[in-house]
Amino acid sequence: MKVDGRHYRSLWWDHDKDALQIIDQRWLPHDFRIQQVNTLQEFAEAIVEMRVRGAPLIGATAAYAMALAMRLDPSDAAMDQAWSFLNATRPTAINLRWALDRCRNRLRPLAAAERAAAALALAHEIADEDVEINRSIGAHGLELIKQIAAQKPAGEPVRLLTHCNAGWIATVDWGTATSPMYQAHDAGIPIHVWVDETRPRNQGALTSWELGSHGISHSYITDNAGGHLMQHGQVDLVITGTDRTTRRGDVCNKIGTYLKALAAKDNGVPFYVALPSPTIDWTVSDGVAEIPIEERSEREITHVQGKAGDGAIDVVQVTPDGTPGGNPAFDVTPNRLVTGLITERGICEATEDGLAGLFPDMAAARSA
Amino acid sequence: MKVDGRHYRSLWWDHDKDALQIIDQRWLPHDFRIQQVNTLQEFAEAIVEMRVRGAPLIGATAAYAMALAMRLDPSDAAMDQAWSFLNATRPTAINLRWALDRCRNRLRPLAAAERAAAALALAHEIADEDVEINRSIGAHGLELIKQIAAQKPAGEPVRLLTHCNAGWIATVDWGTATSPMYQAHDAGIPIHVWVDETRPRNQGALTSWELGSHGISHSYITDNAGGHLMQHGQVDLVITGTDRTTRRGDVCNKIGTYLKALAAKDNGVPFYVALPSPTIDWTVSDGVAEIPIEERSEREITHVQGKAGDGAIDVVQVTPDGTPGGNPAFDVTPNRLVTGLITERGICEATEDGLAGLFPDMAAARSA
Repeated sequence: MKVDGRHYRSLWWDHDKDALQIIDQRWLPHDFRIQQVNTLQEFAEAIVEMRVRGAPLIGATAAYAMALAMRLDPSDAAMDQAWSFLNATRPTAINLRWALDRCRNRLRPLAAAERAAAALALAHEIADEDVEINRSIGAHGLELIKQIAAQKPAGEPVRLLTHCNAGWIATVDWGTATSPMYQAHDAGIPIHVWVDETRPRNQGALTSWELGSHGISHSYITDNAGGHLMQHGQVDLVITGTDRTTRRGDVCNKIGTYLKALAAKDNGVPFYVALPSPTIDWTVSDGVAEIPIEERSEREITHVQGKAGDGAIDVVQVTPDGTPGGNPAFDVTPNRLVTGLITERGICEATEDGLAGLFPDMAAARSA
Repeated sequence: MKVDGRHYRSLWWDHDKDALQIIDQRWLPHDFRIQQVNTLQEFAEAIVEMRVRGAPLIGATAAYAMALAMRLDPSDAAMDQAWSFLNATRPTAINLRWALDRCRNRLRPLAAAERAAAALALAHEIADEDVEINRSIGAHGLELIKQIAAQKPAGEPVRLLTHCNAGWIATVDWGTATSPMYQAHDAGIPIHVWVDETRPRNQGALTSWELGSHGISHSYITDNAGGHLMQHGQVDLVITGTDRTTRRGDVCNKIGTYLKALAAKDNGVPFYVALPSPTIDWTVSDGVAEIPIEERSEREITHVQGKAGDGAIDVVQVTPDGTPGGNPAFDVTPNRLVTGLITERGICEATEDGLAGLFPDMAAARSA
C-alpha cells in the first residue's frame, strides 16, 4: 500500500540492484527505513530480529533467502544447509518451515544449473500468491462495506473497528483485516477506522501508521473504548485478523479480540474475521478448550516503548518495581460471536458447514 | 492501609506537628512521598496538581484547608474568601463543593473564637466518615469472598479482578472496590487480585502499588486479558468501583468496565460494584442514554509516562507523529450485567427496587 504517495510491498525484488528490499519494521511506526538484504546472515537477522514479521512475510523472506543460497552454491548440500540455517531462525514459525519445504521440494529434482533461477521465480511466486490471497479477501470484504455504505446518507463514512495489526506490513501486501478497508478507500467509499491500541505491544500504532500513510481516516483508541463506541452507534462493522481458526470457526487472535466480539454481539454490530485459508486448523474444533495460549514476558506489560522527547526510542516502566504481571498473548473468540469469516474464496458462516462449504478440498483432506 | 508494614491513611493529622500530612500521589507508584501542608496556597496546589485525588479525599482535604483558614482568620469574610479560593481549585469536583458548603454551614452560626477548633473537628469528622463508609462496604463485600472461599479447597485463593483504582489512596482509607480485598486478606483468607492496567492512565499501577505494599498477591494484566482469564475459570469474582450509579443501578465507571461486565456475564462470573451512597445519582435512570461521557486529551493515549532507565519519570510517544486519537474516559455498564451493588448499608440488586430498599430515605427525598 502507499507510503508518502508511493506504492510499496513489505518486501520486493529490486531488478536494478538484483537484490531483495525489505522494510526494517523495528523502526515503525516512528521511522520508515528500507534495507537491502545482501547475505544469508542478513536474511537470518531480518527474521530473528523481527525486521520482518507476520507469517506470510516470513515465509516469503525465507524463499528469497533460499534463492540467494542457490545463487551462491546450488548443490544439494548447500540447499540442506540453507534449509537448516534458516529454519533455526524461528523454529516455531510454521510458515517459515512451510516455505522452506516448498522451496526444497521444487528445487531438488532440478539440475544444479537451473536452481538459482527457479528458486528466485518460486520466491516471486510465493510473494505474489500472498498478495493475491489478501487481495481476494479484500474484494469479498469490500462487499460488506459497500452494503453498509448503501444504507447511509451519501458521504457519511462507514466506521470500522479493528484490533492488532492484521495489515499489509504483516503480509506482502494488502493485509487481511485491512484489505477490505484499503479497497473501500481506493474505491472512493468514505470510511473511518477505530484502531485498538492492542496492549501490550501496541500494534495499533503500526495499524495507525499504515492507515495514515495510505490516507485513510482513523482514530487510535484504547482497548477499553470499543464497547462504549458500539453502545453509542459509532461502529458499523468490526473486522479483525486471526492467527488460527478452528474447523468450526472459533477464532484464536490477539488477546482482547474476544472482548470486542462480546461487545459487538451485545450491540448488534457485525463482527467479521478475515483469514487466509492456510490459517485454518482443520484438526481443532473447540478453540477455547483445545488451543494452548502462549504466556509471554511480564516485561511486555510493565514496560512501554516509544519515542522520547529527544526523538530517540526509549522504554519506560509503568508499574512499581517488582510488580508481577500476567501476559496471555492470545484469546479465543467462540464461533457463536462471529458473524462471518472473510476468506480468499468468499465469506462464510463461522461453522463447520460454512468452512467446509468454501473449502471442501481441505475439509476432505483432513477427514481422509 | 499498610506501606512497608506501617498503617497509613491517604491523609492524616499529625498532632505533634499540628498539621495535615498527605501522600503526594504524583510520585506514585514509583515513589512514596509524604508532604506536610502548611499554607492555604499549598492546600490549593495539592488539589490542583492532583497530589490528592479521588472525590472523598479531595473533600476531606478541603475541610482541613478550611480549618487552617479559620485558624488564621475566623471572620465571616475570611471564611467566604477561603470557600471561593478553594472551590476554584477544581470547580467541577462536586465533592469539593459539598465539603466546603458543609464546613461553612456548620461554622457560620458559631462565634469566631470557636470556629478554628470546630473546623478542625469537622475535618476529622468528614475524614472519619469516609473511612467508616468504606470499612462498611468492605465488611459487606467480605461476605461474598467468604462464601466463595468456603466452596474452595483450603488454601486455594479466591481470585478477584478489578479495574482502575478504586483503592485506599482514592479515599481516606480502605478504598471502595479494594476494601473487601483488604478485609479478606486481613482476615487470613487467601486471595489473588488480577489488576487491569486501565489504559490510558494506567491506574492499575496504583492499585498494584497499594496491594503490593499491603502484602496482597496480585498480577498486573492488560485490559485485554480479563475475558480470556474468565473463559478459563481464573476469575471467581469481579469488583469495581464507580463514579456515578443511576437509581436503577446502571454504573458509570472508568472506560472498559463494560467490557469486563460482558465477559463476566458470558462466563457466569459474579460482577459486583462497590459504591458509597453519595455517588448514587437519583435523578438519572438510563445511564447509557442519559450520562454524557467526558472525552479527554488524545495525549493520554498517544503518550505513556513511566520510569526511565535512569530512574527519572519520563514520557514516550507510542504512536506515529500526528496520529489522531479518541479518548472517552468512562463507559456505562447496564444494570442487567451487574450482579449486585455493595454499599455501606449492605448489598442489593442493581435495580430501582434494590437501591430504594437499602436507601428509602434518599429515594424518597428524590421523589419529593
